[in-house]
Amino acid sequence: MSAPPVHADAAVPRALARIRVVLVATSHPGNIGAAARAMLTMGLARLVLVAPARFPDPEAVARASGATAVLDAAQVVATLDDALAGCALSIGLTARPREFAGRVADAREAAREAVARTAEGDVALVFGTEMSGLSNEELARCGLAATIPANPGFSSLNLAAAVQVMAYELRVAAGAGEVWRAPRFAAATDDEIEGLHRHARATLLAARFLDAERPRRLLARLRRLFGRAQLEREEVNILRGILARIDELAGRPRR
Amino acid sequence: MSAPPVHADAAVPRALARIRVVLVATSHPGNIGAAARAMLTMGLARLVLVAPARFPDPEAVARASGATAVLDAAQVVATLDDALAGCALSIGLTARPREFAGRVADAREAAREAVARTAEGDVALVFGTEMSGLSNEELARCGLAATIPANPGFSSLNLAAAVQVMAYELRVAAGAGEVWRAPRFAAATDDEIEGLHRHARATLLAARFLDAERPRRLLARLRRLFGRAQLEREEVNILRGILARIDELAGRPRR
Repeated sequence: MSAPPVHADAAVPRALARIRVVLVATSHPGNIGAAARAMLTMGLARLVLVAPARFPDPEAVARASGATAVLDAAQVVATLDDALAGCALSIGLTARPREFAGRVADAREAAREAVARTAEGDVALVFGTEMSGLSNEELARCGLAATIPANPGFSSLNLAAAVQVMAYELRVAAGAGEVWRAPRFAAATDDEIEGLHRHARATLLAARFLDAERPRRLLARLRRLFGRAQLEREEVNILRGILARIDELAGRPRR
Repeated sequence: MSAPPVHADAAVPRALARIRVVLVATSHPGNIGAAARAMLTMGLARLVLVAPARFPDPEAVARASGATAVLDAAQVVATLDDALAGCALSIGLTARPREFAGRVADAREAAREAVARTAEGDVALVFGTEMSGLSNEELARCGLAATIPANPGFSSLNLAAAVQVMAYELRVAAGAGEVWRAPRFAAATDDEIEGLHRHARATLLAARFLDAERPRRLLARLRRLFGRAQLEREEVNILRGILARIDELAGRPRR
């Protein structure tokens, strides 16, 4: 098997580069294109096609929607054995795990095992035909059967959807599932927060929003709210700015 | 919002029945159909369409591939506010979380939070247009932004693919992610397993497969193998049947 094609996921972990997606006897080239797109969205780039009905094909390119590098690098082979040559583990996707005599895993477990086994070599994810999936003989060739949890009354994930879910689980299992988080700014210190609470108490009393005899409940609620929010310094400054404006409006002398 | 349509997922948890999938200003009816299919595969059935370009439409039915009950029950509304009316939480999907001032979660976290919040009421998952997703204003209307981890160089999940991944995570988060497992038959007792090992030792010695002076290593490996396999009673019987046949072939008197 050749090296994976270059693609733009600079952070692609080594594990994902060792995953082959094997599509067996796919009928519709559009589904091959959609599978290529689903793969590349998750950083997978190695596609192996076993005896596809039509490939290459303009429909595949159209549905790949920009993931043409995956199609261009796809290998077409004659048999499943060819596709699995040299693999440390092959995982067959099936919606009918009862027909498999070996181990069965759900999608998440299978993805974790796939990533772990890339330490030893390539790992193949094997998907059958659109109409009937993998045959029992094809599944028996795999070391593990994987099933995507689904509605038992309507379990017909299409081929690209199944590839999408597995590729997503592989990306998360490979530790590349991080998403962007808002940067944390400097947290307010305890002193700054206590200064805010003192200011709020004085302002709300002066504005006659608080009952001086029984101020506790409201202040406790504010304390709870701001505690949960883990205030940043800048936010304390903004809130004290608002309090200062209330002070002005209420005619309370500036502190 | 009306009750979810009846569908065949008898085991659908209450949480999934409280999830609305909201598609905003979808351009292509085929994508609405594909989203309906993706939803129903995971047991989601409540689809709300905000100002779709074309709906109902034969293309939607074609791509729904049997999930027409979801399309038939879909609600078409004019504004996002209409779609979110009465929700305990709305979660906006975005590939550009940097533009959101509020909390950002990954797909898995968002699904867990969605399921937890169904205890309070409906939860909406909101998906934007095919070309540009949710606008900043639409996203700001949501209480949480969710991002599906993806290849930063090719993050273009199509609409149905994004719905599929989120619906899958929701099903798993709702505790309906169980897949069929091979039934466990009666485990062999320690006595039965020790009987197997004694038999194997005697047979392999008689068959001159074992060196009587140094039998330890091979037997230890067999013990390790069968220990890992957690033998069932029936399997012990099968293995002893094979040993008995070797005994016959080797001319060893039957035990």
